[in-house]
Amino acid sequence: MSNKIADIDSDISSWYTEVVKKAGLADYGPVKGTMVIKPYGFQLWENIKEVFDGMIKKTGHTNAYFPLLIPKSYLSKEAEHVDGFAKECAVVTHTRLKSENNEIVVDPDSRLEEEVIIRPTSETVIWSMYKKWIQSYRDLPILINQWANVVRWEMRTRLFLRTSEFLWQEGHTAHKNKEDAQKETLDILELYRRLAEDYLAIPVFTGLKTESEKFAGADKTYCIEAMMLDKRALQAGTSHNLGQNFAKAFDVKFQNEENKEEFVWATSWGVSTRLVGAVILAHGDKKGLRLPPKIAPVQVIIVPIYRDDKQKNIVSDYIKTIINHFEDSGIRYLVDWSDSSPGYKFNEWELKGVPIRMEIGPRDVESNKAVLARRDNGEKRSIEKDELCVITKRILKEIQKDLFENAKLFRDSNTHTVGSYDEFKQIIDSGGFIRCGWDGTEETEIKIKEQTKATIRCIPFDENPKDLNCVYSDNPAKHEVIYAKAY
Amino acid sequence: MSNKIADIDSDISSWYTEVVKKAGLADYGPVKGTMVIKPYGFQLWENIKEVFDGMIKKTGHTNAYFPLLIPKSYLSKEAEHVDGFAKECAVVTHTRLKSENNEIVVDPDSRLEEEVIIRPTSETVIWSMYKKWIQSYRDLPILINQWANVVRWEMRTRLFLRTSEFLWQEGHTAHKNKEDAQKETLDILELYRRLAEDYLAIPVFTGLKTESEKFAGADKTYCIEAMMLDKRALQAGTSHNLGQNFAKAFDVKFQNEENKEEFVWATSWGVSTRLVGAVILAHGDKKGLRLPPKIAPVQVIIVPIYRDDKQKNIVSDYIKTIINHFEDSGIRYLVDWSDSSPGYKFNEWELKGVPIRMEIGPRDVESNKAVLARRDNGEKRSIEKDELCVITKRILKEIQKDLFENAKLFRDSNTHTVGSYDEFKQIIDSGGFIRCGWDGTEETEIKIKEQTKATIRCIPFDENPKDLNCVYSDNPAKHEVIYAKAY
Repeated sequence: MSNKIADIDSDISSWYTEVVKKAGLADYGPVKGTMVIKPYGFQLWENIKEVFDGMIKKTGHTNAYFPLLIPKSYLSKEAEHVDGFAKECAVVTHTRLKSENNEIVVDPDSRLEEEVIIRPTSETVIWSMYKKWIQSYRDLPILINQWANVVRWEMRTRLFLRTSEFLWQEGHTAHKNKEDAQKETLDILELYRRLAEDYLAIPVFTGLKTESEKFAGADKTYCIEAMMLDKRALQAGTSHNLGQNFAKAFDVKFQNEENKEEFVWATSWGVSTRLVGAVILAHGDKKGLRLPPKIAPVQVIIVPIYRDDKQKNIVSDYIKTIINHFEDSGIRYLVDWSDSSPGYKFNEWELKGVPIRMEIGPRDVESNKAVLARRDNGEKRSIEKDELCVITKRILKEIQKDLFENAKLFRDSNTHTVGSYDEFKQIIDSGGFIRCGWDGTEETEIKIKEQTKATIRCIPFDENPKDLNCVYSDNPAKHEVIYAKAY
Repeated sequence: MSNKIADIDSDISSWYTEVVKKAGLADYGPVKGTMVIKPYGFQLWENIKEVFDGMIKKTGHTNAYFPLLIPKSYLSKEAEHVDGFAKECAVVTHTRLKSENNEIVVDPDSRLEEEVIIRPTSETVIWSMYKKWIQSYRDLPILINQWANVVRWEMRTRLFLRTSEFLWQEGHTAHKNKEDAQKETLDILELYRRLAEDYLAIPVFTGLKTESEKFAGADKTYCIEAMMLDKRALQAGTSHNLGQNFAKAFDVKFQNEENKEEFVWATSWGVSTRLVGAVILAHGDKKGLRLPPKIAPVQVIIVPIYRDDKQKNIVSDYIKTIINHFEDSGIRYLVDWSDSSPGYKFNEWELKGVPIRMEIGPRDVESNKAVLARRDNGEKRSIEKDELCVITKRILKEIQKDLFENAKLFRDSNTHTVGSYDEFKQIIDSGGFIRCGWDGTEETEIKIKEQTKATIRCIPFDENPKDLNCVYSDNPAKHEVIYAKAY
């Protein structure tokens, strides 16, 4: 397989798929719509997971595990919920295979009385359990998260971004009043913002989804929205205030402190393996991936350079003394001793987005130095061996910061205000975010979507609708919103 | 819900289920055969997972993720495999629900052309991918593991021990020759032994499964077998040498170093949430769980004792100074400030198996001490505050060691040799392991199983068949084996 990849500027869609496959992040699974996450891609996900798992445990949440399989009837209980996304899902109808004429066939005798569904999300099964677990305000809050796989039947696959099975965390909390639920919803959104900005180096807008864009079953959906390199929006995480909807659907009441029965208040929230897609599409360049050091599986790739076995031994001994220090400093490194040429290795690890490449040849050994090359901007420096550890750590920090700053600069310079709907249509066609007034009606939303394919990504927390008119109806704006075409 | 639990000696089956539920480890899910793992149970699993994940990463394995859904046709490829356990599994036939007369029904138009199966194990889907990834000996070995859920349709549920969905890790490796595959199989078995003995404090026999007890599709299956408190055997982990079976079924060949094409050699291996069941059934007592400190979610439960707010404040201030040190020492502790009485809390945390209870009342504060009570043997000691951290750590180590030693003593004193088949039948009826000669025939295995319900758990590595006769046929023994009734 050649390492040549499509041009990111003219065909980012092919660039994306080729990078994902050639960098060893993921591959298509045998069943249409499914994905295999390969070790390099999975390490990226594990690192993201570890960061967020730490964040939620620190704020009092615990992990648990709920079943994959949900009775079909549960989906009928919350009408709005099932009318949403939940209809495209995998239905289990039988529980046994048998051999017949040398073939494996489904045993018709094993038909289930009630079909079961593979979870597209777990609100319904979790609230059926919460009904058993919650009696009194003393049982609240319940702050549970699970790391799990879910299935939503999708035929238009894009690795990481849209697959019928994906991995995610889904938090499901239960509270004794509206305020606590709202606080939880926003606290989690803030954790998502920190995860995206401080670790993935992706700047995000935080805000509220409109009624038509919110999660089916929620009172309110908040989100983090990021801009990708093609100037399209990617919804990177959502946090829902579910109000009492699921508590009512599953009849979950509790004795409050005044000894009165009340329905429980709920939230749910999730981020998924889609975040891996976001990292690729926020930081990539024509050579491939550029990974933020904090989540990169390998932070430093060491490429030894030698002509013969004698040189190889000298370089190898020298490298050993360096990686000892790296290990002590917790730097994630790898030495590439494979047979390929240095040039091939450079390309390979640039494709894989390793933040720093360290080149070490006989001349470096002689001068007691090593060459460090930054993946993000190509800068190369020769560094004294004694300083290698300290400077490597400093550069990793700089790369983390610079990737964020660059992404922010890119986003901000592609976020526009407009004077008219004509201008709106012109700008949205060439991509980017538009901040503009919206009259608050679904009618306007629908019309704009029909005419431009752009949607309201969110009503940002820092909106300022005063003195704004709706970009479409010209009526006074109810909100300032962010419009974009989205993934 | 009362905390009274069934008597462990007369009814260990009820004791088990009640402890699992009342200690907050797990609950039944809504679909028959499924399980909800509650936070306390999940923390236990997370701790076990973390230990083993570290072990395999240290030995060069990486994690990846393969799809949940497998084409039905894949199961036809390895005949022996599907003739094994794989027939009882969840079959997905449709991909959409729709509303009809206010009900949610399966949309008949969404019927799949080829049904898909929820993975009962992932060999088939993984080997279909390995076919794409492996060309040359340079691509080998592949040392991949995944943490995943699998489904095998089971109607006779026992929480953790037998559920239709369970969590596990499944390692799947590919090698360039038979020797490497065999070495991998045994290396992993040794990791399983260490996990069981050094962390779960459960002594195990390591050995080979007989042909009739091995994994469907494997050349050889090795296992770790543990004895539970009712003297029955529990298979706690298996490691399979798959030979070239799956490579042949999925046509996975590679160019070897002599430039010849050859089928790849494979292994697979797994441990599951069943290990949580093993911990419960190996160490429990009449009061509930006894958890080994190394994997206990909470290692020390601190119970404050006070009569009024003034005492509460004094005790609270005192506790703060202690837990600072605990945090620095990485001791997992919890302070129980709930409203219940100290006696209630003692029972509750004994049920939950927390290794050490620390009692602190005004008198302890006055004398600058605290009382430590061991969960495993009930010993109580009053300790000087300055020594609390050091002594707590020492006692945790002692408990870890003592739980193992006690379990080993129990197992060894319930492992018998027999002089005749009559004696065999008598002993096996009252439980325990029997080490005896076996003539190596399947016929003998079947007869003994029919007559006693006991099976050969393994041919232990330390077998000594010399001078032994078969316990059933009286022919010269081919192997010394371990017989038991199993879970």
